[in-house]
This record gives sequence, C-alpha cells and structure tokens, in this order.
Amino acid sequence: MKTLIIYAHPEPRSLTGSLKDLAVSTLQDAGHDVQVSDLYAMNWKSAVDAADFGPDTDSPLRIIRASGRAFDTGTLTPDVRAEQEKLLWADMIIFQFPLWWYTMPAILKGWVDRVFSFHFGYGVGPHNDVQYGERFGEGTLAGRRAMLAVTAGGPESHYSERGINGPIDDLLFPIQHGILYYPGLEVLPPFVLYGTDRMTDEQYPDAAKAWTHRLLTLDSTAPIAFRRQNFGDYEIPSLQLKDGLEPTGRTGFGLHVN
Amino acid sequence: MKTLIIYAHPEPRSLTGSLKDLAVSTLQDAGHDVQVSDLYAMNWKSAVDAADFGPDTDSPLRIIRASGRAFDTGTLTPDVRAEQEKLLWADMIIFQFPLWWYTMPAILKGWVDRVFSFHFGYGVGPHNDVQYGERFGEGTLAGRRAMLAVTAGGPESHYSERGINGPIDDLLFPIQHGILYYPGLEVLPPFVLYGTDRMTDEQYPDAAKAWTHRLLTLDSTAPIAFRRQNFGDYEIPSLQLKDGLEPTGRTGFGLHVN
Repeated sequence: MKTLIIYAHPEPRSLTGSLKDLAVSTLQDAGHDVQVSDLYAMNWKSAVDAADFGPDTDSPLRIIRASGRAFDTGTLTPDVRAEQEKLLWADMIIFQFPLWWYTMPAILKGWVDRVFSFHFGYGVGPHNDVQYGERFGEGTLAGRRAMLAVTAGGPESHYSERGINGPIDDLLFPIQHGILYYPGLEVLPPFVLYGTDRMTDEQYPDAAKAWTHRLLTLDSTAPIAFRRQNFGDYEIPSLQLKDGLEPTGRTGFGLHVN
Repeated sequence: MKTLIIYAHPEPRSLTGSLKDLAVSTLQDAGHDVQVSDLYAMNWKSAVDAADFGPDTDSPLRIIRASGRAFDTGTLTPDVRAEQEKLLWADMIIFQFPLWWYTMPAILKGWVDRVFSFHFGYGVGPHNDVQYGERFGEGTLAGRRAMLAVTAGGPESHYSERGINGPIDDLLFPIQHGILYYPGLEVLPPFVLYGTDRMTDEQYPDAAKAWTHRLLTLDSTAPIAFRRQNFGDYEIPSLQLKDGLEPTGRTGFGLHVN
C-alpha cells in the first residue's frame, strides 16, 4: 500500500503530531510506502490567488478558467503540482488534523482549495443526458481511498445523534462527501478521538492502540457507501435523489448513503 | 446600525466583490456605518502558529493555553486585535464569500481560527452544574447579529432537501451554528445565490435587487431559532437534547433549531 498523509498541526509534539508519527512508523513497519505532506513545515500557501495560475492569467481573474488552463498546460505552481503527483502516486490518503471550529484548519482548507484544481479535482468529464461530469464516485482520484483522522476537543456525547454540536457524521459530511468523494475517492469511516482538550498523558496509550488497530486494518475496512452520481440514483441534471430510494425515516445528508 | 463586512475573494471585479461593493453603498446610503475587512487586500495570515501568541509562548506550543494567555495580556498580534475590536464595534456582521468545496475559502477560515481566540471566541464563562461555559446563545458576541452572503456554483436543486450536495441549511450549519452562534451571535437566514458558475451579466440586476432587498430589511429579519445551550433544552454536561423536545420526524442538525 502507498499511503500519503496530509498533516496539519503547527506543533510536532502535539497529540496530532504524535499520531502522525505513529501512523508513519506503523505503516512502514508493516511494509507499506509512506509520504507525508507536513503543511506547516512546508509553509503551505493557503490563499487561492492569481499567482497560482502563472504569468498569463487574465485580469480580472476568473478562477475556474484560470485554474483549468494552468492545469492543462502544466503551469500550476510547483507546490500544487507536487501535491497532485503525490495523490496520483498514493492508493490511500490520510488527512490528520485537529477539528478547529468543527472543520479543518485553514492551512488544510488551503491545500484543498489550491490542489483540487479545475480539470483535476473538479470539472472532469462531460455533461450530457446520462451524466453530470465525473464526480461523486468517479473522477481523477477514483480507485483510491481516503480517511480522516481527527481530534475533537469536546466529549463524544456532544457529537452524538442528539448532541449539541450535531452528529459527527453530519459535521464531516461536507468534507467526506463534498471534498473527498467528489473527485472519486472512496472514504473509509473516520478515526475520531474525543475529549482531547482534557486528555492526559496516561490516556495516550489507549488512543495509540486504537489508532494502530485502524491503521493495520485499512485493507479490510469497508468505505462509507455514498451513492454514486451517474448510476441511476439521481435525476439528471437536477441531481435530486429519485423517489423511493431512501431508507424509511432517513433525511438530510443521510439520504446520500446507501 | 454598525455593520462589519468580512469579505473574502481575490478578485475585486468578481461577483462576490460586486455584491460586497453593493452592500457597502446600500447600507451607507441608508445611513448606516460600515467597515470592511477585505481579507485578500489585507494579506490576511491564515495559519495559526506560535507567532500569533507573542514572544513568551511556551514550547511545545499548546494552542488553547497560549491563545488565552495572549488574549488576557493583550499580546495577540495587532491584526487579530484589530479584528476583535471591529467585532465589538459592530452590531451586524456580514460574511461575504464564495462557497468553495461546500464551505468558506481558506483565508476566511484562517480569520476564524485566529480571531476567535480562547477567552474571546471560546473558553468564556464558567462550567458548573447549570452551564457549560457561555456559548451557543451566550458569549462575547451576544447581542450582535450575523449573516452569511454566499455564492454557490451549482444550481439550487443540487442543494435542496433531496439534492446530491445536501440541503444548504445543513451544509451551512457548522458555520452558522458552530462558528457564529457559538460565541453568541444571532444568525439571520443566509443570502445564497445559486448557479453562479454560469451566471451571465444579464442576470446580475436580479441578483443585485434581491441582495439590496435583504440588506434593507435586516432589522426586520428574524434570526434562525437555534436552541440556547444553558436554558433547559440540554442535559448538562452531556449536552444532549432532552427527550421530547424535537418536532416530530426531525433529526440531525435540525434538532437544534426550535
């Protein structure tokens, strides 16, 4: 297995940093190849702007057009091209980060905004009567798998079905479905550690054991069964779920899991 | 009314830029005071790191502790302190941005990550038998209102109850509830423009008219009725919604709207 870890924390000695180190050693000891994109160490540029698209960028900047043209001509900046190449090298991508304000840190969102360019992350495949582009189950990254590995400050009850933060599956849906599944990645259930704001050193071994177990069972872990866009479940082009396909009582994001 | 507009787009001549300009002129013409934080023009720093917390920051960096100490001693960086002061000046805060990958651009997430420091955005108020901090209806920004003004590339049907992206209210819940309501802001229903990837110049006047109408009716617009944390709807400290409070058939994020 070739694993790419996208890691976003400013402190190497943090819990997130320790879990990243553990992932690298565990996977390597099991005979897998591992690359790490350490976004803070790379001083990753977060903001999409005209400088991303080379000297021929139009003014005013039209991002989709500029992004697609730079991708097509190989003139995206070297940092972005390197990340795209790592993604195409990998067959497993792990995103390791703390939940900050219920989503990813800005530096990681900046990785998504810049690396998932037009014609790479989106704008792939034709639109016609039977498909609306290649996305949600098809796309550049189809055949690869991804997983979120996140730490959450609050206790698990706050992220449960009736918890005040909302269910963790729903909080992560815009990432897991909207960012990862969109360009074709199969998404494994997330590894979530709760209560990390008050976690003690004595609790770390249990967390490490749980994470190691997930890492060593990636091959046998079934992905979340998100519905594919172009295979009969949705009307085209409205992309509404066809009547009668939902399990009884299921609403919201849960409609899009089979 | 004193309105702060947090604006995140790299191109001033973009649709988002035009709508921001329209908001400024419309509100000023109606006699309101307006300030704009133009994050791209400010070259806003997105990444939380040790440099945010002054020269006395501990190593290894512990973000919550460092953030709270720097806030308490007035040693957060000047850019962050200026934004906190603008928030305390305003009684209405508008966030104007394009939806990129179903959430805010990285530069705006970096504004949240850095400006909503410990003891300002979170970590406010005591934890005891009857409250779990001052948040979700209480907090530093209580008594102020906020609204998202976003552009979405795809058509509205994709963001509807059965649409493949998920309902727009659920996509925005982590922002509206988790980021805005958390420190006490009352959140007005969002202004969302759909189909902006294919919007023509001829369609702009209708969009401008709709936005102007929202801007001129802010005072009479009722906020989303998110449930307050410490006023009897939730068990403390599990923060689970008490049995029997949910409208029939409501699940997921919708449980937390009264």
